[in-house]
Formats: sequence, C-alpha cells, structure tokens
Amino acid sequence: MSLTNASPEQAARAAKASSRRLATLPTAARNAALDAVHDALSDARESILAANAKDLELAKKSAADGQLSPSILKRLDLGRKGKYDDMLKGIQDVKGLEDPDTLLMSSVGRVDLRTELDDGLILQRQSCPIGVLLIIFEARPEVIANIASLAIKSANAAILKGGKESTESFKAIATVISKALDKTDVPNDSIQLVTTRDAVDPLLELSQYIDLVIPRGSNDLVRHCQRKAHMPVMGHADGLCSMYIHSNADKAMAKNVIVDSKCDYPAACNALETLLVHEDVLESVLPDVASALIAQGVALRCDEQSRTVLSKHLPQDQAVLLQNASDADYDTEFLDLILAIRTIKSTPQTPFSSVDAAIDHINTHGSHHTDGILTASQEVADRFYSAVDSACKFWNCSTRFCDGMRFGFGTEVGISTNKVHARGPVGLEGLMIHEYRLSGNGQGAAMYGGANGRQYKHRKLSV
Amino acid sequence: MSLTNASPEQAARAAKASSRRLATLPTAARNAALDAVHDALSDARESILAANAKDLELAKKSAADGQLSPSILKRLDLGRKGKYDDMLKGIQDVKGLEDPDTLLMSSVGRVDLRTELDDGLILQRQSCPIGVLLIIFEARPEVIANIASLAIKSANAAILKGGKESTESFKAIATVISKALDKTDVPNDSIQLVTTRDAVDPLLELSQYIDLVIPRGSNDLVRHCQRKAHMPVMGHADGLCSMYIHSNADKAMAKNVIVDSKCDYPAACNALETLLVHEDVLESVLPDVASALIAQGVALRCDEQSRTVLSKHLPQDQAVLLQNASDADYDTEFLDLILAIRTIKSTPQTPFSSVDAAIDHINTHGSHHTDGILTASQEVADRFYSAVDSACKFWNCSTRFCDGMRFGFGTEVGISTNKVHARGPVGLEGLMIHEYRLSGNGQGAAMYGGANGRQYKHRKLSV
Repeated sequence: MSLTNASPEQAARAAKASSRRLATLPTAARNAALDAVHDALSDARESILAANAKDLELAKKSAADGQLSPSILKRLDLGRKGKYDDMLKGIQDVKGLEDPDTLLMSSVGRVDLRTELDDGLILQRQSCPIGVLLIIFEARPEVIANIASLAIKSANAAILKGGKESTESFKAIATVISKALDKTDVPNDSIQLVTTRDAVDPLLELSQYIDLVIPRGSNDLVRHCQRKAHMPVMGHADGLCSMYIHSNADKAMAKNVIVDSKCDYPAACNALETLLVHEDVLESVLPDVASALIAQGVALRCDEQSRTVLSKHLPQDQAVLLQNASDADYDTEFLDLILAIRTIKSTPQTPFSSVDAAIDHINTHGSHHTDGILTASQEVADRFYSAVDSACKFWNCSTRFCDGMRFGFGTEVGISTNKVHARGPVGLEGLMIHEYRLSGNGQGAAMYGGANGRQYKHRKLSV
Repeated sequence: MSLTNASPEQAARAAKASSRRLATLPTAARNAALDAVHDALSDARESILAANAKDLELAKKSAADGQLSPSILKRLDLGRKGKYDDMLKGIQDVKGLEDPDTLLMSSVGRVDLRTELDDGLILQRQSCPIGVLLIIFEARPEVIANIASLAIKSANAAILKGGKESTESFKAIATVISKALDKTDVPNDSIQLVTTRDAVDPLLELSQYIDLVIPRGSNDLVRHCQRKAHMPVMGHADGLCSMYIHSNADKAMAKNVIVDSKCDYPAACNALETLLVHEDVLESVLPDVASALIAQGVALRCDEQSRTVLSKHLPQDQAVLLQNASDADYDTEFLDLILAIRTIKSTPQTPFSSVDAAIDHINTHGSHHTDGILTASQEVADRFYSAVDSACKFWNCSTRFCDGMRFGFGTEVGISTNKVHARGPVGLEGLMIHEYRLSGNGQGAAMYGGANGRQYKHRKLSV
C-alpha cells in the first residue's frame, strides 16, 4: 500500500501486477493479514480519531456555510458511539467468512464443475478472484477498512479512492493498514491508495488494469461511474421500490408491511416509494394503511380515485393532509416520508389482468431493485414473481429485508441492479469469477471427431 | 418477429416489453416453439437457399473486386455440404439442453439457495433470463437460427442485427422463423430483426432496453462493440494463446500438443501464437517440436538464443526457413501458420523463477484467453494455474480444447475473456442471471435487532 502521490495509471498498473501474486497466497496467509490489519487499527484508535477530528472540523465549517449536507457530516464522524468498534468487528467478520454452508463461494478456488472430457483429460471449473477492484467512496472513512478486508479475503487487489471530505481520516487509516501489511505475505501493492485530486475519471478509463468498479456513495457518484467507466460497474443509482396490494390482501398484514417498508428507514434504497392499490380494496384496506402512514408523518400523494375514497374514510385531521400525485411522483425516489399512491383497475373478467397492470407499472416506473406484493393467493404471487423485472421480488413482507446481512451473506459489497454477474444484495461471492483448468497427458484436438476419430466421453465427476 | 423497418429504438422497446411475457412461459411452450422453428426451416430449405444464392452472387462479385475476403465468402455459403442440416440439428440440440446433470443451469428457474431468514420468512435465489440480448453478426446466416433458438430456450428476448453481406439470407430465414412463431405461445416481438443500415451504434446506446450485447464476427466488430456499448458485452476481441515448455516437459508430448495447438485450425481464436521454451530444453526438446512444425508449413519467428540452437540442430533445409522475431511478434495474434518463439532463462537457484518468468510474459503479452504449460511437475503446473490471469489454463494438452462443445456444454454462445459474469467458453448458462424471491406472512424489518428484537435464524434449507 502506497501513500505516495502515485498517478492513477501507476497505481492501477502496480495493483494489476500484484493481483496475480495475491491470487497464489493460501487462505491462512490472507487471514493472517486480516488479523494484522485488525490489531494495528485497534492499536491506532487515538491517532486515527485525531485525524478524523480534523476532517470533521473542516466539514463542520462547510456545513455551516451550507456547502455540505448535515448527513455527510454524520457519516464522516468515526468517533460516534460504537462506530470504531463496528469497523474493527467488520474485519473479523470478513475473516470469518469461510464456512461453505453459510456462503456459497466463500474461499478462493471452490470447484463447481469437473468433467472427464476423455480418459485422462480432466476439466475443472473453479472460483477465482476477479483481479483488480476500483472502489470509490465518499464520506464514510470506515469503508476503507471494510473494503480492504474484503479485497484481501477474496484475493483481489484494490485501488481505493476516497472523497475529499475524509482525506485526513483516509490517510491515517491507510498508513496504519499499510504498515500492518508490510509484516504479512500480502503484497504491499495489492492495496493502492489514490489521493490525487480529480483522479476518478482517469481511473475509470483504465480497463486494461481495472476489472470492476464499486462506487460506494451517492446516486450521483454511481451514475457518474456508470456513464464514464470502461469496465463493469457494480451497483445501482436508484432504489424506486413499489408495493402492490392485491384484491385479496390481508388488511393487518398490509398495514404492518407497508408501514415498515416506508418508515423503518426512509432514506434507504430499499424503502418504499410507490404504493399500488387494487380498486376493490380502496375502501376496505387502504384507509387503515393510510391512517397508519399519516400517523408516522408520511405525506401521501394520491391519484384521484384513491384520494376520493380516502377523503371519505379518513378522519378529518388526516384527510386534510392528503396531496394530489403528479405524473413525476411515480418516477421519483423520495428517500423521505413521502409515498405516491396509484389505483389499479379491477378487471374481473381475466384472472391476472389486475396484477399484470401492477407489474407493468413496476417494470416501467421502477428501478428493478426490490418490489413487493400483498396477496393471499400463491398463483397471483407466482405471476408477480415471474413477470416483475427486478433483482428482488417480495411477497407479504417488507422491502426493507433486501440487504446482505439480513439475507445471511455475512457482509455486503453492495446491492446490484445489473443484469449480469451479480444481482441483488452482493456478498463476497460477487467479487469472484471462475476459471477453467484442463489437464491431460498429451492430447490434441485433431484426434477427435470424424469417422475414425475418438469420441468425447464427457463423464461428470464429483466436485 | 418483425421484418418491417423498425427503428433500433422501436425494436428494442418491443423486445423489452415482450421479454417479461416470455419469462412467464413454461419450458414446454418454449420447446414447442423450437420444434415449430425447426420444422418450418426444414420445409423452407429451397427458398432459403435461393435467397442465400443471391447473397453469394453479390459477394462473389465483391470478392472478385477484392472488396471481400474469400473466407467471408465461404462462411456465407449456406449450401455447403451438411451446413443446412447442421443448422437444423443445432435447433434440436438447443431444445435438448435440459438435463441438469449435463449442464449446471439449463432451465429457467433452477434454485441454488434457500434460506429461512426467520420462521416463515423464506428466501430463495433462482436463475432467470437476463432479459434482452442484442446479437450482432456478420456473414454467417445460420447464426440467426442458432441465436434465435438459444434466446427462446433461455427465455430471453433477442434483437438480431445481421451484416449487409447476408441480407437476403437473413430476411428469408427470419420470415420463416417469424411465421413459425406466430403459431406458438412465444410472443412474436421477443425476436426482433433490425435491417436498418447503420443501426449498430444507436443500438449500443439503448441500455434502458438492452441488457447484454453478443457480437459474433470479426475482432473489429467485437472491439467496436466493447468501445461503444453502454451495456455489458460478452466476448473477446483477441485470442493470443501461449504455451510454455518447462525444463522437465516430455518431448513426445510437447511435440503432439504444440503441433495440434498451432496447426489444427490456425485461424481459430484458441490456436497457439507464442511458444515459450525453458533454456534447459532448447537443445533436447525444441528441435523436434520445431521440425514437426516446419514440416506442417509453420514459419518460426525466433529470439536469438532459440534461433542459434535450432540452426545447429535442424536439418539445413529447415534451418534456412527460420526467421528472427521482432518485439511486435510477441504481441501478435497471427491467425496463420506463424509462431513466435521466446527463450525463458534458466534460474536454478529458486524453484519457481523460470515458470514465473513465463507467467509474467503471458500475463503481459497474452489476451487472457487460453494458455498452456508442458511439465511433468504438479507443483509447477499448480503455480502456473494459480498465477496465470487467463480464462483457461491448460496443462499437457492442446489449447484447441477451449471450446463449448469440447467442454461438454452442448452449445456455445461464445468465448468470453470478461472478468465478470461469464468467462471462458459460455454455454446457455451465460444467458442467465439470478433473482431473489422472499415470501413471508407480514414481517417487517423493524421487528429485528436491538435489545428486545427478534434475531434472524438464517437456517439453510435444501434446494
């Protein structure tokens, strides 16, 4: 790990070169490096918090001038109760990700295919690190430790580019990690730090060295990376999640699930933004749901039909708070206590036409992240499951469950709405790819096929 | 399937819309559509070959004028012995790809993860189609049938864009497929044909509709797509494959494997382009290998050390044919009967330094496609396996085995040197991604965690 002002290209080239050496290290060597990093960061708590205090001081000035949002200030503060310990614990958690029963592909080299193509010609497919990751993050300095741990554990080299708000914290943590790695078998160059200003765009062009970009920050940062990167980007810019209340949804369940989806953490990408309601339950189910939401301070932006019904059924002090939805509201990720409500027409002549209308809305207006349905019918849920084009489809439960920790992955690299490689909450597995190894004893392809040639046997072997 | 002159955007939008309906069809419906396509193309053999004859006539003129290479002419000819039948058989082969014992993920909806997050809160991960594929191909008209079959089988919608040389064949085959699909449950719009000229670049920008690009043609086409596409591209532009003869390689094996790797089909992406030879076996192994290669008409471009040795050990009539290698030869995919040879220094003081030097050459000069080693030592082979940064690493066998059919995948979508999603020979599995389905009975995330909250159980369930 180098703290010199390496150019983006120098950093990327060095990371690429060392990534192959890193790939040859055994698990024990990588775990020992994680222990070393953990212990060094634990010992250096005071000096790192002192550096973080400098960042905070500058950031407070910017916030006072209105140049920085208070939420960034909050994320920047490494001294908040429990945060430093959480960072340390995260390194141990990553180190512990080894049990194949709890994670599908937790260690380098899991074999998932073995075939004897012919006598003595054995094909093997196994997991391997992707190579070089570029991780760009903004204000949360503890992400450095988290990402460096994930990279070491998965035997990927990583280039870290931090935001200017966390420069001092970043340098302090990085120096500690660098010194700790020096005493281990993990090559120092496998974690590269780029502190150069304006280095993001040049890095995004270095596809010969960098295999995957993981932006950890605002929607704007993700969108910028998606637009500029010459290599794949893992992540999502928007989380516009919807929930559909079908005609046979349970009222109590609907209230619980929708209030949780909207109110548990409104600023999260898996929070609910649009509620679709079957016409037949506007009077029976929606008023209870709406009343509970308003009680939690949620502003409801309704289409005409739902507003008319709610105005009649809600108590006067709640009914006056109802708002009219604009078209744009159905395409907006509010990230706030606001919910758009739209009525889905009842079309009793065909069994699926109402759920299909809800599905069409979701596929057109949603962001393909997480969408849910409330229904008592397995058939309707199956229709929803198969036709909604989203990474996560939830039935009778909160959209807030879309999360790597909650899914049991032990850690979360991010949530992906990509249609290739990794989709939904991504664990360590998303930092792996596979390779093929074929061993023989002198075989050539010309021996096979034709009238007198050998035939492939393609015998499946146990893995 | 539409043969009207749909704009790129109209075609892409229609494909996206129908992709979700296609995803809800059962396997039987998709297989029935493949039967219908097969039978219709079988019945229409004469009219399609007549259309192909028109393309051929124009192409012959272009070839005579020197505007078209003879190899394109050959690829264009659908009337060549066995080619039409191979096309028909290919559709049946794709239909037959169902047995999970022969292919890891052959049908839509294979479940690979089931976890009970808590009582009654069940997470399931399962395979699903990617969505919309854009397939761009050049002169081989039978690719249309192949790709349309793969798309239908995998429940992906596809946009097909053919090259101008095969326009008439393309239209004829497309019309037949379109009529055949009309009588099946597969939505007509799920296979879109774009015949507009200059449509490639506009298509490559439509990332809101198109999820994956698969170029099937020249290196120039692939490179163009990689540069321009706003969505992932599956494929590889270059196949610069190397073989390293270690100090303990078997001479007879080396000769067989290297002659096969170079000569079996020199124009293929998996043909050998660079030979690395350990200094210690320049006299003992290389002359036999070189002599056999020269006998097959291969021009050897040697570094100084290997040329000096070969000049001494080869018969005079072969020695005079030796050439000097330039630096550029080690970065060149010849696709012809030419082989670059480089000597790897003997460094007996450390066990792995020679193989490491060969690995460094391969990682620096190769294209990360397929690279091989010839050695009697498992340890050296393991070092090569883990440190070479290529999709396929072969030990004591020909690079020509890198192929989806030879690997036992039943069909081949292409070969990928990408570091995410699919790598190496790609079967139907490469056209799939996964999705998460979570079902509950009213759970919200706020119930969990904290001092009095519920704890996640993360019980692993059988799949």
